[in-house]
Amino acid sequence: MAGVSETTTESGTAPRRGYAKGRAKREEILQAAIVMFGEVGYHGASLREIASRVGISHPGLLHHFPTKAALLEAVLEHRDEIDFADFDRDLEQGRTMFDALLRLVQRNALRRPVVEVFAGLAAEATSPDHPAHDYFAQRYPTTVRRMLTELERRAGAGTLRPGIEPAVAARTIVALMDGLQIQWLYSLDGPRDARVDMAADLKTYLDLIVVDPAS
Amino acid sequence: MAGVSETTTESGTAPRRGYAKGRAKREEILQAAIVMFGEVGYHGASLREIASRVGISHPGLLHHFPTKAALLEAVLEHRDEIDFADFDRDLEQGRTMFDALLRLVQRNALRRPVVEVFAGLAAEATSPDHPAHDYFAQRYPTTVRRMLTELERRAGAGTLRPGIEPAVAARTIVALMDGLQIQWLYSLDGPRDARVDMAADLKTYLDLIVVDPAS
Repeated sequence: MAGVSETTTESGTAPRRGYAKGRAKREEILQAAIVMFGEVGYHGASLREIASRVGISHPGLLHHFPTKAALLEAVLEHRDEIDFADFDRDLEQGRTMFDALLRLVQRNALRRPVVEVFAGLAAEATSPDHPAHDYFAQRYPTTVRRMLTELERRAGAGTLRPGIEPAVAARTIVALMDGLQIQWLYSLDGPRDARVDMAADLKTYLDLIVVDPAS
Repeated sequence: MAGVSETTTESGTAPRRGYAKGRAKREEILQAAIVMFGEVGYHGASLREIASRVGISHPGLLHHFPTKAALLEAVLEHRDEIDFADFDRDLEQGRTMFDALLRLVQRNALRRPVVEVFAGLAAEATSPDHPAHDYFAQRYPTTVRRMLTELERRAGAGTLRPGIEPAVAARTIVALMDGLQIQWLYSLDGPRDARVDMAADLKTYLDLIVVDPAS
C-alpha cells in the first residue's frame, strides 16, 4: 500500500493528486480513530464524531471506511505495519529477538495513543463476538510461539538460565509486556519520578531467564 | 452493606421484605452490568439494555442506579468486596501473601465475567476522563505497594532470591497477573489443552524471585 501511494504522489497529474489527497485524508481518519478507540473503546467510538474531528461529513468518512469494523481492521493493520516494520528490520540487521523487543517497547513509550488503543482493544475484544476478537485470538498464540522459538534457540545455545521452562517463559514475556503497558499508561498522569519504565522492567525480567538478552 | 441486608431479611416484616426484594434486584442489575461491561465495555454498555436483561423498565433501573457511572462504581466496589474478602481471610488465617495471591488467581479462573469486566475496564479507563480512571490510577500503586511490602519482608527474612530488586519485582508481579488474564480469556475459546493456567504461570514466576512463595 505504501508503495502505491509513493508512485502516485510522485507522478503529479490531477487525478493522482486527488488520489494522494484521498490517501492523506484516509491517514488522518486513521489517526483520529486510533485516538478515539483509545479514549472510549471500539464500542464507545462514533464514526460521526471521528468524521467531525477530521472535518469531513459522515458520508465522506463512509467513502473511506464503509463500516466501523472496517475502520477497526485498518487501525489494527496500521499498528502491525508500524510495529513489525521496525521490529523485522532490527532482526534483519542482526539484532537478537529480545534486543529488538526491548527497542520496540522503548518506541512504544513514545506513542501513548497507539499503546492505549491496542491495550484497550485487546482487553475489550476478549468477548467472542467483538469484531477484533479473531485478530487477537490468533495474535497471542502467534506472538507466544515467536518467543518460544527464540527461547528454544537459546536453550540450544546455552544462554537460557537453568530451570527455565521455555513454554512458560514465552507466555510470561508477552503477559508482562501487556501488563506493564497498563501500569505505564496510568503512571503517565502521576509524578514524573513514579513513571513506569516498561523497557527497564522487561529487561530485568529477561535478565532473569536468559543470559545477556541483547546478544 | 451485607450486614444490613441480613438483618432486614431475617426480620420478615412487609416493608423489610420489600427492601430485601429491592436488594435482590439491585444484585441482579449488578450481575447483568458485570456481564455487559465485560462484553462491550463501559462506553459501549447501555442502561436500557441492562434494564431489559433483568426484566425491569429503564426508570426502574435508574431508581437503583441513577447514572451509568454510579453503576460502574458499584461494579468496582463489588469486585473489591469479593476479592479482598477472600484474600484478607486467607491472610488472617496465616497464609503468606503470595499463597493468598495464588489462591485468588485460582478463584479468578472460575469466574470469567468478573475477570473480563475488570481487565476490560482497567484498559478502557487509562483515558483520564473515564469515570473509572481515578479508581485504577490509585489501585495500581496501592497493589504494587502491598507486593513491595511483602518482598521487603522476604528480603529481611532471607527468602528473596539474590539479585532481585523488590520495587521491580512488585510491579512485574502485578503486570504479569494482568497480562495472563488477557491470554487466559482468549485461550478459553481455543482447545482445552491450550488453555492458559494463570496460577501455574504466576507460581513459576514467583519461584524465580522468592524461595518457596507459599511459605
